[in-house]
Amino acid sequence: MRMSTLFAPTRKEDPADAEIASHRLLVRAGFIRMVARGIYSFLPLGWRSVRKIERIVREEMDRAGAQEMRMPGVQPAELWQESGRWDAYGSELLRLKDRKGSDFALGPTHEEVVTSLVRDNLSSYKQLPINLYQIQTKFRDEPRPRFGLMRGREFVMKDAYSFDVDKQAAHESYATMKDAYHRIFTRMGFDFVAVEADTGNIGGDLSHEFQVVAETGEDVIVRCTTSGRAWNVEKAPISIEDAERDPDAQFAELEVVKTPKTHTIAEVSAFLEREASSIVKTLIYLADGEPIAVLMRGDHAANEVKILAHLRASGLDCAELVLADDVTVSKVTRAPVGFAGPARLEVPIYADLSVRPMVDFVTGANMKDRHLTGVNWGRDFEVSSFGDFRRAQAGDICADTGSPYEEFRGIEVGHIFYLGTKYSDAMSAKLQGEDGELKPLEMGCYGIGITRILAAAVEQSHDGNGIVWPMPLAPYHVTVLPLQARNEEVMAEAERIYAELRAAGVEVVLDDRDVRAGGKFKDAELIGFPVQIAIGSRGLAEGQVELKQRAAGDKVLVSTDTVVAEVARIVREGLEG
Amino acid sequence: MRMSTLFAPTRKEDPADAEIASHRLLVRAGFIRMVARGIYSFLPLGWRSVRKIERIVREEMDRAGAQEMRMPGVQPAELWQESGRWDAYGSELLRLKDRKGSDFALGPTHEEVVTSLVRDNLSSYKQLPINLYQIQTKFRDEPRPRFGLMRGREFVMKDAYSFDVDKQAAHESYATMKDAYHRIFTRMGFDFVAVEADTGNIGGDLSHEFQVVAETGEDVIVRCTTSGRAWNVEKAPISIEDAERDPDAQFAELEVVKTPKTHTIAEVSAFLEREASSIVKTLIYLADGEPIAVLMRGDHAANEVKILAHLRASGLDCAELVLADDVTVSKVTRAPVGFAGPARLEVPIYADLSVRPMVDFVTGANMKDRHLTGVNWGRDFEVSSFGDFRRAQAGDICADTGSPYEEFRGIEVGHIFYLGTKYSDAMSAKLQGEDGELKPLEMGCYGIGITRILAAAVEQSHDGNGIVWPMPLAPYHVTVLPLQARNEEVMAEAERIYAELRAAGVEVVLDDRDVRAGGKFKDAELIGFPVQIAIGSRGLAEGQVELKQRAAGDKVLVSTDTVVAEVARIVREGLEG
Repeated sequence: MRMSTLFAPTRKEDPADAEIASHRLLVRAGFIRMVARGIYSFLPLGWRSVRKIERIVREEMDRAGAQEMRMPGVQPAELWQESGRWDAYGSELLRLKDRKGSDFALGPTHEEVVTSLVRDNLSSYKQLPINLYQIQTKFRDEPRPRFGLMRGREFVMKDAYSFDVDKQAAHESYATMKDAYHRIFTRMGFDFVAVEADTGNIGGDLSHEFQVVAETGEDVIVRCTTSGRAWNVEKAPISIEDAERDPDAQFAELEVVKTPKTHTIAEVSAFLEREASSIVKTLIYLADGEPIAVLMRGDHAANEVKILAHLRASGLDCAELVLADDVTVSKVTRAPVGFAGPARLEVPIYADLSVRPMVDFVTGANMKDRHLTGVNWGRDFEVSSFGDFRRAQAGDICADTGSPYEEFRGIEVGHIFYLGTKYSDAMSAKLQGEDGELKPLEMGCYGIGITRILAAAVEQSHDGNGIVWPMPLAPYHVTVLPLQARNEEVMAEAERIYAELRAAGVEVVLDDRDVRAGGKFKDAELIGFPVQIAIGSRGLAEGQVELKQRAAGDKVLVSTDTVVAEVARIVREGLEG
Repeated sequence: MRMSTLFAPTRKEDPADAEIASHRLLVRAGFIRMVARGIYSFLPLGWRSVRKIERIVREEMDRAGAQEMRMPGVQPAELWQESGRWDAYGSELLRLKDRKGSDFALGPTHEEVVTSLVRDNLSSYKQLPINLYQIQTKFRDEPRPRFGLMRGREFVMKDAYSFDVDKQAAHESYATMKDAYHRIFTRMGFDFVAVEADTGNIGGDLSHEFQVVAETGEDVIVRCTTSGRAWNVEKAPISIEDAERDPDAQFAELEVVKTPKTHTIAEVSAFLEREASSIVKTLIYLADGEPIAVLMRGDHAANEVKILAHLRASGLDCAELVLADDVTVSKVTRAPVGFAGPARLEVPIYADLSVRPMVDFVTGANMKDRHLTGVNWGRDFEVSSFGDFRRAQAGDICADTGSPYEEFRGIEVGHIFYLGTKYSDAMSAKLQGEDGELKPLEMGCYGIGITRILAAAVEQSHDGNGIVWPMPLAPYHVTVLPLQARNEEVMAEAERIYAELRAAGVEVVLDDRDVRAGGKFKDAELIGFPVQIAIGSRGLAEGQVELKQRAAGDKVLVSTDTVVAEVARIVREGLEG
């Protein structure tokens, strides 16, 4: 490809709304352009990289025995009503009506379509296991689309769905997919971790997120420093000290103190000169709409999955637990947000185990700009029950090994779920097993964010000058830069190297534009070609060209006789990983 | 691939709504399944063939210098308002609102997105020509989805858009695409014709449809029997006899005759025992909402493109010409539909040139179950003007060569347009030319119906037993059929041939199911594998297997020693065309 004809409009300026590197660089390097909020066009360079991502995913899915197919993007409401998600899914599901007024959804996921397809077309358990996948454009009406491709509304996803005769077979299908995902992200050159995750409302009891390690990641992950096992912070098992309060403890007097404009734990801690661990924060939740209070130590974070489990274990038949909105908080505490406290609160109070041994702690006073000191449970308020409500964080002790967790951030590029029979029960997808009995199919679902991977790769690999593509995802492997476009000898040598590299199967862009050398280098760095070959009249006089590998950064002089073979070798090795 | 794991649910029964072979067979052979009207899932076999179609299209588009990219499916209304099509497009454009209430459309085509993209990202004519294409799922809210993939609502299309500095360069881009299309449809093994077509409201003055010849095609095409040049019936130039009426003609008396239940020309002709060519039909049109009548000889069809041009040439500033609805017809003629006639009609009457020499013809009487005989223009009604309004049909004389036209039916699989500056004018997409002047870009657009090709291939190539895939589009090239699944020797030989064919790069399905030979043959024929290898115990005893090519149909015995090499050769030759 010649740069003069390639549609790769590079830019000097960052897009105004770009907050992270991948958004900035993919726009500036001419890979993507925004069409509407969270909706992008992929320009030729961007689409080439996407197609390489697709190819790796496809090869490994096929190798794992999955079968590619394609379900429609526009899905009839009837199917979603059958599963119960037409009402349950919320406003990320873009609903629409056709010209006859029938209801449809723009599919963000395809459990309903695939379950009905398999239900209607399989007749015997002998046809199982089956794993169907597709690579398809999805739509999810994100409330706050941002970060470029990272949290878009229209995006390309690979989604796969496995069907098995029983739970053991379903777990085997799950393990096969987990292995395939390892191969996929390894082949893409990622530093990634498979993280054990909570299944939430999905159905089954087994789930892993595949997280690319990146400082800009939206997700926080903890990893045991001994076993190396990584967990979603809500799922990580932490060793909890279940301590009692010193029965002989003397309580200080309860005091109201002025704490103007101190809304956060950090602000209260600084203002009162008390450790965060001696402050107790009061979180107001709605349990199926009814307010409750949850007390956490100031330096801890709450884990809603654990709270919900505790409520259910306490006999509360609670389906949904969400943080209360500001209006509710003000109503419950009769104070502005930021000053909630347990004393005189008229809702049930649940407290984390770490609050139990505490004496004379600080809480909000349920009054504007006021906190209480010398607070003690039992004397100043009653606790309905104590439980383990903590979210894991760095320094917490792994319950499995006794070693501390370390924390890092990640970008989720894949997520696999064992679904159990949630959808096959709802949609009556049953088959006769070997024993002749009708049983609901055991399902799994397996997603990969194809276009998100483009952004994740840039987040993980870039520098001040631009993108640093790993060879397998680079839109082109090599760029040839004739530094003096009007020098015939330079151009002839550039054309020769360009032609010979192409003949050797290398994907190469010849920057044949009549622009200054500085501009060519800038664009080459920004676009992030793994290999640059710079051809200048001075070097040529000595039979040499300059070779630079983008990742390593250093330039070496190479003979014009050997440069093609040398570059072909670098590319081959880069592709083999 | 093994048939026991392949998700290819074949069926004995035709789908109830199937009217044509491709719809019946693609469903029965397990290639597609309906999800909603005009909306299909592509099962693994169907999707494999679609991907082969995509690959051929992609290779030829790349070879022609076009660059692949991807624009979004969900498009903001603003762009369509800029081009004026938000209001003009009609109800095939599926409009929707996002969670914030902003207007979007599910893109049936991408002129607006691509024009704004090029406008905002090109700065110099030196970057032209440019041709951007995508292969993408489109949505068109068809009023009457039917014929399976042939007239669906959601479908995969290749759409390309060229941008040039002037008309001559745009015509060159057009010619390059025309050549690429010829290569594409030739490689797919189609009997096809490039048909000169009218550009309608699209903009430019040059357009070709690529029509696959098939009896079930929706389009009628005429071809000059001398030059072989083919035309859309509205565009074909016909040699018109511009005859006057015999000035000495004696007129018969005007008579009202009873013609009960004769609504069509054929019925009137049969009932009155008069040739269709002695009957004149009266068509009521709305020209920008105002009714007019158009008279055609009974054996001729009207060409609205010509009528519209005639009205404009007559000084009528008419934007849109449509056949009047039944209510309007009844109002204008004061009679039920089917009995319209020119006499006593109070709207302007335009007549085709072939009506001019006619004497004593038959027309409707503007009364229920009545026609008039002995009708003559000038005496019984006045004609505003005569013009050439005829649509070409078999037997008409080609104006270019003087030879008669032949007629055939086709399935449109591709359509190319020179657009001119319709979109670049509306959306202000301009570039400085070499002379420094700002000029609107000259555009072309080029579509291929990727999933429609799947149906067209089946229409063109099937028999009573199923599909007959051309090698380049077959989901798999070969099927290996062990006829006795419980015979170890037979299975071992089948496995050997299967393994060796795969090693030779042949795409092969081993029918390893424990079902009867008849069932395997039936499915193999239905699915349409180009080559079948049947392995039975009797043949094996003599070292032979049975080889059948689906298209040719005859079976030959081949030695087990040579069958792999022989089949690999057949496949290779089939792929090379």
